[in-house]
Amino acid sequence: MAEATNMRLRLPLLCIILEVILIILFGTLVEYNVDTDAKLWNANKNQSATRHDYENEFYYRYPSFQDVHVMIFVGFGFLMTFLQRYGFSSVGFNFLIAAFSLQWATLMQGFFHGMHHGKIHVGVTSMINADFCTGSVLISFGAVLGKTSPVQLLVMAIFEVTLFAVNEFILLTILGANDAGGSMTIHTFGAYFGLVVTRVLYRPNLDKSKHRNSSVYHSDLFAMIGTIYLWMFWPSFNSAITNYGDPQHRTAMNTYYSLASCTLATFAFSALVNPEGKLDMVHIQNAALAGGVAVGTAGEMMLTPFGSMIVGFLAGTISVLGYKYLTPVLESKLKIQDTCGIHNLHGMPGVLGAVVGAVTSALASPAVYGNGLQRVFADGEPGEWNAQSRGGFQAISLVVTLGMALIGGLVTGFILKLPIYGAPPDTHCFEDGLYWERFSKRFPRSTHSI
Amino acid sequence: MAEATNMRLRLPLLCIILEVILIILFGTLVEYNVDTDAKLWNANKNQSATRHDYENEFYYRYPSFQDVHVMIFVGFGFLMTFLQRYGFSSVGFNFLIAAFSLQWATLMQGFFHGMHHGKIHVGVTSMINADFCTGSVLISFGAVLGKTSPVQLLVMAIFEVTLFAVNEFILLTILGANDAGGSMTIHTFGAYFGLVVTRVLYRPNLDKSKHRNSSVYHSDLFAMIGTIYLWMFWPSFNSAITNYGDPQHRTAMNTYYSLASCTLATFAFSALVNPEGKLDMVHIQNAALAGGVAVGTAGEMMLTPFGSMIVGFLAGTISVLGYKYLTPVLESKLKIQDTCGIHNLHGMPGVLGAVVGAVTSALASPAVYGNGLQRVFADGEPGEWNAQSRGGFQAISLVVTLGMALIGGLVTGFILKLPIYGAPPDTHCFEDGLYWERFSKRFPRSTHSI
Amino acid sequence: MAEATNMRLRLPLLCIILEVILIILFGTLVEYNVDTDAKLWNANKNQSATRHDYENEFYYRYPSFQDVHVMIFVGFGFLMTFLQRYGFSSVGFNFLIAAFSLQWATLMQGFFHGMHHGKIHVGVTSMINADFCTGSVLISFGAVLGKTSPVQLLVMAIFEVTLFAVNEFILLTILGANDAGGSMTIHTFGAYFGLVVTRVLYRPNLDKSKHRNSSVYHSDLFAMIGTIYLWMFWPSFNSAITNYGDPQHRTAMNTYYSLASCTLATFAFSALVNPEGKLDMVHIQNAALAGGVAVGTAGEMMLTPFGSMIVGFLAGTISVLGYKYLTPVLESKLKIQDTCGIHNLHGMPGVLGAVVGAVTSALASPAVYGNGLQRVFADGEPGEWNAQSRGGFQAISLVVTLGMALIGGLVTGFILKLPIYGAPPDTHCFEDGLYWERFSKRFPRSTHSI
Repeated sequence: MAEATNMRLRLPLLCIILEVILIILFGTLVEYNVDTDAKLWNANKNQSATRHDYENEFYYRYPSFQDVHVMIFVGFGFLMTFLQRYGFSSVGFNFLIAAFSLQWATLMQGFFHGMHHGKIHVGVTSMINADFCTGSVLISFGAVLGKTSPVQLLVMAIFEVTLFAVNEFILLTILGANDAGGSMTIHTFGAYFGLVVTRVLYRPNLDKSKHRNSSVYHSDLFAMIGTIYLWMFWPSFNSAITNYGDPQHRTAMNTYYSLASCTLATFAFSALVNPEGKLDMVHIQNAALAGGVAVGTAGEMMLTPFGSMIVGFLAGTISVLGYKYLTPVLESKLKIQDTCGIHNLHGMPGVLGAVVGAVTSALASPAVYGNGLQRVFADGEPGEWNAQSRGGFQAISLVVTLGMALIGGLVTGFILKLPIYGAPPDTHCFEDGLYWERFSKRFPRSTHSI
Repeated sequence: MAEATNMRLRLPLLCIILEVILIILFGTLVEYNVDTDAKLWNANKNQSATRHDYENEFYYRYPSFQDVHVMIFVGFGFLMTFLQRYGFSSVGFNFLIAAFSLQWATLMQGFFHGMHHGKIHVGVTSMINADFCTGSVLISFGAVLGKTSPVQLLVMAIFEVTLFAVNEFILLTILGANDAGGSMTIHTFGAYFGLVVTRVLYRPNLDKSKHRNSSVYHSDLFAMIGTIYLWMFWPSFNSAITNYGDPQHRTAMNTYYSLASCTLATFAFSALVNPEGKLDMVHIQNAALAGGVAVGTAGEMMLTPFGSMIVGFLAGTISVLGYKYLTPVLESKLKIQDTCGIHNLHGMPGVLGAVVGAVTSALASPAVYGNGLQRVFADGEPGEWNAQSRGGFQAISLVVTLGMALIGGLVTGFILKLPIYGAPPDTHCFEDGLYWERFSKRFPRSTHSI
Repeated sequence: MAEATNMRLRLPLLCIILEVILIILFGTLVEYNVDTDAKLWNANKNQSATRHDYENEFYYRYPSFQDVHVMIFVGFGFLMTFLQRYGFSSVGFNFLIAAFSLQWATLMQGFFHGMHHGKIHVGVTSMINADFCTGSVLISFGAVLGKTSPVQLLVMAIFEVTLFAVNEFILLTILGANDAGGSMTIHTFGAYFGLVVTRVLYRPNLDKSKHRNSSVYHSDLFAMIGTIYLWMFWPSFNSAITNYGDPQHRTAMNTYYSLASCTLATFAFSALVNPEGKLDMVHIQNAALAGGVAVGTAGEMMLTPFGSMIVGFLAGTISVLGYKYLTPVLESKLKIQDTCGIHNLHGMPGVLGAVVGAVTSALASPAVYGNGLQRVFADGEPGEWNAQSRGGFQAISLVVTLGMALIGGLVTGFILKLPIYGAPPDTHCFEDGLYWERFSKRFPRSTHSI
């Protein structure tokens, strides 16, 4: 068994080959954009269309980028440290696959919707988009957490990032949909992709690792670090790539109110579904975030704080109920072993967000948005405006996303099922010891007691 | 007993009723302001008084907002995780009451000093102000930590937020006082309000839970996460709602130096008051922050780094001495059981900050501030300037704040004493097990060892 | 022994004397700069050379400052909490010496290259520079971690900050070198300074504390908090004081790609050098950061993402190999006991960064940089441009830095060897109990179980 899960050649080879390919492709295809290139930025500055330094997109987007970056690496990473003996893998594999995915995503997203004269132009907006795509991979990671080797996860990331970029291209470019915070592209896609993967990788004997598939007191506190960072920075996440000015400002605020309302719903229903009225850390860690997911599409629209709070309350409610009543059924009936319950945090709230986005789009009118209409909706010229058709395209986008996720997850799942990646045996799931050196060989840091 | 503290109906009912009321009031009263509304922002942009996107208040304030947000949810939340068996409640109840308070504060602060034609206009500044108000509730939470049910805490928040808004209205609008970082409105008010509440809720038999009212090694490290985040982001806290430009810049810098100086004083006096010269985590976690509290009023003024460092040094000194010598006396003589020692971190340094603010105001002159005078002091027209009267109004503001806190805390304390909220018995204070599910029912995360 | 390490007089006296000296010097020498002074900022605003509030350096630099601040206090502080019984000291002493160093650095850096008419002008840029200087002290702290008293650390900081400022003056002002992210000034200097200090303080009997010089499961998770924050915010670190606009934007992006590539190299080589292919937390916590160090000089140049990824990959590789093969040799042959392995994280990657910077400088041409040349290179007038000589000055800067670090470390090491600072005995290294109160005396937080 130690042999079977040995990563000594598999992991280094895969990492090195992938990074070499990435470096070659970056060398061939990637260029600074006008805001990061010394020549281009300063050439523009001397022309009539003067752009001042404070108009560099860096100052509009970089603080949001850093908040998103924290969500990806600390938020997702620590959220998954709740398992008692899987903290190293949770935060470590999260780190590895995120570092790979953001590079691969830069290429894939650039290829599908960022080519300029055969080159991919990069800057802070492409960095945010790459982090977003990475987020969807980390959502899927949550479903298979504890049951996959790092090699499997990297292979999953290769396929998922690629399909994410294709789906994003269809939604945003072909269908012209709005999805600034990614209710569809990130959350719905990542969740259903991951759920299908974990379905294909179903382990009938996972019970053998049941004693490790639980939290201890301090592991739940580490997980709360992840939760709170995700919660706090979600307003930055949803607003990171909206248009400058009022849309960015409004999106952050709508998300803030949605999350606050969602948190009250989460505490309420967590106590309500427990016979003794006790709160469950699983709900607090996860369901309180559903409010951010559910305004990922409509957040930039004139949803109002009022509308945001209603959406957040619904999201928290369905998320807690999902953890309590749906997850056990998914496992027993549909054989979907969803370690982190991503269906409750990203799946259902993502679909809710898509529906809310479609409805809010369909209701958008020049009377409400004024001249701001085309700043939110790409085709928002008052004359040609057709709110109903826009709502329709939003709804089609959800269907496309679900289809892409299900088919993509199915294919990827079967690829991951090949017995060549060093997956853990059923008896050693949720166990850091398989992939992490317990007793560090470095002198003098020589003993490790787990 | 399990019956008495059962939250199954109480907590859900209160949360749902409060959130429904909030949603209705938001629907009736709250509107986007000119920087968040699609129509208003873009209407302005086409008029003569052009405002560019980079002039949207979002770009001036949002990074500060996020820093403040981190202080509220991670800073306060983790600072209180020092107790060995109360980490879930510390960070969890902090989360719950903060999520409620920021919504309620938006309404109360809007009602008292933000109404425009019968509507409350919201944007990033109102979000910061709501977080500030929430901060004062969390300060009070520190005094009653471990001895109150989540229902009691929500009821406390309802009253405290309301009174905070009234006091803030009197200070800033009627008296025209300066208090950008809230030495008075946030720290002094929150501290003395909380101290009176815990006095009213005095438990003569709290000794029965004494063995749980202490830290363990890793709980102190979790608490240090809270401390360090509060310390780092305090410059953002104090500068978050000052005027743009030099006041915001200066406030952040003054706070930075005050905190650095305070930290050296804290380490010095922590070792000095210990017979063996050993440092005490309680002091480091708390007193090192007093420097931020103590420049909360004067930080935006021309206090200079020199003045800030003196104030910080004093604040750290009185805070450590308070923990060592005053807290035991408050408990034994005045029956004030102050779990986190908020009197030492927020009470005394808050009063110090109010006094420093009054003196610095009284010394302000056009010779020092030039044209910047009215950017700091609302009535700072050089001609009509009267520094002495301004100092006097600052001093009156402190007295009003203390009065409001004492009376408000008294009334609220007696309301919280009603035996209907499921408060923990004396034998089970400082215990997560009362309100948190120990063994998660969610399969497969099934066992919890505390 | 308890007597020998007693800090009761030593630590308070040193802290209070230092802070009093700092306060006096700040009162004498330090003034607000034009962006923080009420009179100066608002005077300028009414003149022809109008500067709008959004042009205050605060809005260009403050978000970066806060990210750097997090790296200094949370990043370095928690990175060193990996030791099982030294978490209080790691994060606590990090806090103390950083709070001192940033004040002292403001004066020293101001004295050597920031005097205006006999006064030191301060603002957010000086705050960032002070935090940078503090970073080099914390790097050196990593070498002597667990083997020094807080008094020794403060004394080390006094000397190191001073020499840092001298070296920085020589490099940036006299030699006109580029080093925005401090590959030389911060990392190379801090690393070799610390290595020489720990060499002079060599303890032949450190084996007696060997059982404590190791991590436990949760201490490694706390350390990962430090790692991830350093990793995420390194783009802000390297770009914090570059020129506005394209250089700041480009530097952040180059660092982002370097770190991502470095992370894949780290995982690859960590598994490869282990017989069972298992990953080592020591590598992940440290080597994954080397990519940020190695683009500290060239990051602001037109290094391209492609070049950054190559540099990052090399940095991760040499760092892991250093931990595995070089650190044991340094200890056994050269008697350099490097607790955190700073040679692998800051030393070699710093030198690599200096070399990459020299080469990239030597290749810089107007053809690539256009009008942006002088925004990156101070003497970048196209006419007088001499890339080769610039590359030469960069190389000389590395030699000067190494010389200053070695000599400075030697002298400081011997000063620290005086038996007056209460250093821990060989039997009690890596032990919080020496300097921290185990059982807090504050009632009711009365028992501490470690």
